[in-house]
Amino acid sequence: MNIVVAPDSFKECLSAKEVASNIALGIKKVLPGSLIHEIPISDGGEGVLDALLNGVGGKRIIVPVFDPLMRPIKAQYGILKDKKTAVIELAKASGLELLKENEKNPLNTSTFGSGQMIKDALNRGCNKFIIGIGGSATNDGGTGMVRALGAKFTDNKGDDIPEGGGSLNQLNTIDLTYFDKRIQSCEVVVACDVSNPLTGPNGASIVYGGQKGGSKKDLQILDTNLAHYAYCIETTLGIDIDQIPGAGAAGGTGAGLMAFLKGKLVNGIELILRTLKIEEYLKEANLVFTGEGKIDGQTLQGKTISGIAALAKEHKVPVIVITGKIGADIEGVYDLGVNAVYSIINQPMELKEAIKHAPELIQESAKNIMATINCFNRN
Amino acid sequence: MNIVVAPDSFKECLSAKEVASNIALGIKKVLPGSLIHEIPISDGGEGVLDALLNGVGGKRIIVPVFDPLMRPIKAQYGILKDKKTAVIELAKASGLELLKENEKNPLNTSTFGSGQMIKDALNRGCNKFIIGIGGSATNDGGTGMVRALGAKFTDNKGDDIPEGGGSLNQLNTIDLTYFDKRIQSCEVVVACDVSNPLTGPNGASIVYGGQKGGSKKDLQILDTNLAHYAYCIETTLGIDIDQIPGAGAAGGTGAGLMAFLKGKLVNGIELILRTLKIEEYLKEANLVFTGEGKIDGQTLQGKTISGIAALAKEHKVPVIVITGKIGADIEGVYDLGVNAVYSIINQPMELKEAIKHAPELIQESAKNIMATINCFNRN
Repeated sequence: MNIVVAPDSFKECLSAKEVASNIALGIKKVLPGSLIHEIPISDGGEGVLDALLNGVGGKRIIVPVFDPLMRPIKAQYGILKDKKTAVIELAKASGLELLKENEKNPLNTSTFGSGQMIKDALNRGCNKFIIGIGGSATNDGGTGMVRALGAKFTDNKGDDIPEGGGSLNQLNTIDLTYFDKRIQSCEVVVACDVSNPLTGPNGASIVYGGQKGGSKKDLQILDTNLAHYAYCIETTLGIDIDQIPGAGAAGGTGAGLMAFLKGKLVNGIELILRTLKIEEYLKEANLVFTGEGKIDGQTLQGKTISGIAALAKEHKVPVIVITGKIGADIEGVYDLGVNAVYSIINQPMELKEAIKHAPELIQESAKNIMATINCFNRN
Repeated sequence: MNIVVAPDSFKECLSAKEVASNIALGIKKVLPGSLIHEIPISDGGEGVLDALLNGVGGKRIIVPVFDPLMRPIKAQYGILKDKKTAVIELAKASGLELLKENEKNPLNTSTFGSGQMIKDALNRGCNKFIIGIGGSATNDGGTGMVRALGAKFTDNKGDDIPEGGGSLNQLNTIDLTYFDKRIQSCEVVVACDVSNPLTGPNGASIVYGGQKGGSKKDLQILDTNLAHYAYCIETTLGIDIDQIPGAGAAGGTGAGLMAFLKGKLVNGIELILRTLKIEEYLKEANLVFTGEGKIDGQTLQGKTISGIAALAKEHKVPVIVITGKIGADIEGVYDLGVNAVYSIINQPMELKEAIKHAPELIQESAKNIMATINCFNRN
């Protein structure tokens, strides 16, 4: 039997890779001779690096960059095994995870370090970029990133404006004289699961600025500044970026990527599934296992399970979901292409017990399901 | 698809009938056109009456009898739909459940009421008896039961000895002159899951007398008395009953049934499965669901799941177990013929939550399993 095992992580419990390997162990207890493809999945954003390095193979690059407050740190990105494709997560150099609570300040934070990672990858010969933009601490419209690649953002005296979205009102001229021309001939794909415009009530600042530490007043300033930034982009490049869906992703980095790097925004899970060439495996498969730590009506949209199920449905491959918790309103999952959903919980128990025994429970669950299928399967 | 649904009860939660109907509801959500045989099972002893009345059909008879302390009560037994087969549970007239804690006394308790039920069934034309002997409060060797059918147990002065195992030392003569001859031409089958001899260290008194309220001294008296009883049976009937496996069941009622009623002791679950004609359903089935409230290494011996699985294995029918709790050391269940074991628990939860939602959880579990099978089934 040819089986694809493509789960997400069980959050705060097991990585996607661990989940996949335990499902595979369970399968092998019943069908030791089956062909099992373990393909751990992440649903984009902050997990894209691990998902693609694990799935495709490649190497992890550690590079000195500036963090969101322009302090030197070391950040990592990946170069896939084709040696041409860089996988960069904005969060690794410009993420909220790098700041203490009291350091969060979207007026000052910059995406400069992310641009440094891109430059490093260009220097190593990469010509394709997959950029995950979840989890950023910034609201600078991606200006830091673009500056790291050689662009100059100056005020009406010709001086560089300070880093951060709070200074974009001072922007007068965008000078691309020294902008790294190599990026122009690269393919830039951006994993992005939000469709916010750059500015306005649904824009980057108003919707996401608060969780990055902005006060209500700050958010108004940032929104006005990004509108001015969009105006400057339009006058410089002739592109009206403001209301394009996704321009508001990652504090406007979506806009910066589209305007300066010709970035194409795509759905995160689709990008990952495509990069992992899941479809090629599915074409040959008799069965797919996927899963997440919990599944409910809320968590279905755009996530691993629905992404996998949609592709599997196209190829008429049965999809089994293994999860820790089956929540309310999961009926929609069956329409997506999922055939059955199993919890690993094998008796009344507390969450911490379930987490402690998750590896064995996953194995047992997969074993049982395979034993059941094996009674009827003619493949 | 032809599916046999033959679960036991989920103790303190749902009856076997309720478990079966919820499994069937789950199946029908996937395969509304499938042929489902709902056959609730009990594993003998105290549940044999409900199991056979539910499974075969028949009616419940309420009859005035004496309880273990010879107080008038009303007890019930069943006559199956053939109108010839009586199903009698010893516990209904002679059970521990009828006594308060301080009334338990195996020196005095009698099986007389059980004999009254047998007599009532004879009067109604029954010629076959299925007798479940679990849960008795007695240690009288079945003498009360045999007396209710007309036998006389007298002392060396020709007077009736008192009821109860404590008086059997006074037994001198067993007079069968007025013993109901009708029982001689009946088939008497006894559902019995223990193999204790009548006397000795593994005998009725020493092993079970304590839980019936006997002191250590009482047990020695009872054991000696039953040995004397066995001697009297041998001199009267020429049958050496003492060390026959099962003679010690129900305080020696096993011995009484074998000696005076030509009772055949059979494994409880096998008897029930045979009476329910499970095998005829299994021959035609593609799949069997069975289950219990919990399953572990301890609960496997002689129980519903193992009984069903053994028969299904003979006919090469896959067996799925649905349970509330999967305990330790269940590997043996797979050797018995079970293919997979599923818990209905769908997330970390407490027992009381699981009990509260058991009907829906059972349905969901059965639905999922059927949906999985349905992807691969060619039947």
